[in-house]
Amino acid sequence: MHTDLVAALDIGGTKIAGALVDGDGSLLVRAQRPTPAREGAEAVMGAVDEVLGELMASPQWGRAGFVGIGSAGPVDAAAGTVSPVNVPGWRDFPLVERVHKTAGGLSVALVGDGVAMTAAEHWLGAARGYDNALCLVVSTGVGGGLVLGGTLRPGPSGNAGHIGHISVDLDGDPCPCGARGCVEGIASGPNIARRALENGWRPGPDGDETAAAVAVAARAGNPVAIASYERAAQALAAGIAATATLADLDIAVVGGGVAGAGDVLFVPLRRSLREYATLSYLRRLTVAPAVMGTDAGLVGAAAAAIALR
Amino acid sequence: MHTDLVAALDIGGTKIAGALVDGDGSLLVRAQRPTPAREGAEAVMGAVDEVLGELMASPQWGRAGFVGIGSAGPVDAAAGTVSPVNVPGWRDFPLVERVHKTAGGLSVALVGDGVAMTAAEHWLGAARGYDNALCLVVSTGVGGGLVLGGTLRPGPSGNAGHIGHISVDLDGDPCPCGARGCVEGIASGPNIARRALENGWRPGPDGDETAAAVAVAARAGNPVAIASYERAAQALAAGIAATATLADLDIAVVGGGVAGAGDVLFVPLRRSLREYATLSYLRRLTVAPAVMGTDAGLVGAAAAAIALR
Repeated sequence: MHTDLVAALDIGGTKIAGALVDGDGSLLVRAQRPTPAREGAEAVMGAVDEVLGELMASPQWGRAGFVGIGSAGPVDAAAGTVSPVNVPGWRDFPLVERVHKTAGGLSVALVGDGVAMTAAEHWLGAARGYDNALCLVVSTGVGGGLVLGGTLRPGPSGNAGHIGHISVDLDGDPCPCGARGCVEGIASGPNIARRALENGWRPGPDGDETAAAVAVAARAGNPVAIASYERAAQALAAGIAATATLADLDIAVVGGGVAGAGDVLFVPLRRSLREYATLSYLRRLTVAPAVMGTDAGLVGAAAAAIALR
Repeated sequence: MHTDLVAALDIGGTKIAGALVDGDGSLLVRAQRPTPAREGAEAVMGAVDEVLGELMASPQWGRAGFVGIGSAGPVDAAAGTVSPVNVPGWRDFPLVERVHKTAGGLSVALVGDGVAMTAAEHWLGAARGYDNALCLVVSTGVGGGLVLGGTLRPGPSGNAGHIGHISVDLDGDPCPCGARGCVEGIASGPNIARRALENGWRPGPDGDETAAAVAVAARAGNPVAIASYERAAQALAAGIAATATLADLDIAVVGGGVAGAGDVLFVPLRRSLREYATLSYLRRLTVAPAVMGTDAGLVGAAAAAIALR
């Protein structure tokens, strides 16, 4: 039988999603389980096996030629293992070998979730047609991935483009990663909300203290809320400019929940980028919002597997 | 006749060097002129033509198959032009076309000087055998280049790896490039010397106020001199860690005059790198001094031309 589908897995701290993805990026069959993130390694793997089992029960399974996994990081693509920060039971867990076995011996490609999102945006989204791209996910954390010379570049470990943990403030606040002044520590959703609260912003009657609520306040003109987004934008701009300077980029695509703030984020981000991306070869650099939405992880896991075959 | 040589040009603000380079990286014929950096575009090109003319007068010239140029940046490899900061007469100067004409129609590859140095270190130097490398030149300025997946990666503009102008201090001192807190503004030789002088270090009877003199003082235990090198090391470490995090690197090779400080630089550099390069996939990252010396520019221009053929 012609194998024209990819079995894609998107593994996060909240849910484990799977799909059979065709050559146009359409999801033909879907399955999903909550991630038993606080349980042991085998319980988490059990959820993966259930998702795979559902896909394998589909009459389309026979068309699946290989498996692509995008996983919360860090991952170790060379070893085939994952150690997702938010899934404590999995440390150096041999996910590739286990999925290979469950999936009846299909070959398996593994990348970090930021790399998967990047593969999706390059295949069918905002980075389509750009040969040199950084795609960012700005959410609870800040991740990313790189396309260089027209090709997905996950690096030997599968983590390249992990912009959340580069320091843009070498004397800055300590980061849980051990470094200081990381982009994530300034620009993630929780840090946008924390900074607004510390500087006197208060949530409305609904008690919503998230970055999304800060964005609503910013749109209404609240100066503390505006300033918190501007600071996040400045850190993202410094990080994007650093990446563009190092990798000679055409475009940066910004997705994730924080990007949902729209102009509240993108207007100061574009302004700050002009301040930090100053070299002549960066004049061509553009910034665009991500467009692939919630299926980016699955489409990207498939795209990455195709790119890395 | 078999064309087994590369005609290499190394174009800097002080001198224009040329050589015929063989497949082992040996320089068979050399030529050199001072750069008439304060004169007009044609005067500078005249010096290039004289260097090329000397090479072309060699009985070996017939073995030269193509030309490789490493130039002070920024360069524009796509357009074939250069705009070296220290050669004001050359702005968007069509160097590739002009060299192509002078060299009797040989094809010409152009990269920035940091990329050329990287090509040399990867071909025959400290980065040999490493598939993912950043090489830095820490001198009057701070430049660099990248090897990714075993291949030189100059980027479409020929400037990729230009680590001197990434910001590691987003609220830091303004940089002539227009950004703030750039690595070069903290870690270059002149900035090491400036910081030492500002904090009370005084040169010896010879009046030498360079970073090399600060290194001598640091080795003798002068705390201000030591602190200035430590700060430079911290900025380099933050920049190297950012690059390693983004590009998933195996090694960083540090050359240029400032690297001549030896342990005065490398001991705090390795210490600071442990603080900033914290993610699990960076455990393999090593730091090594460059080994290619003053011919790195010529060997690298040849290596880059070979890599980009």
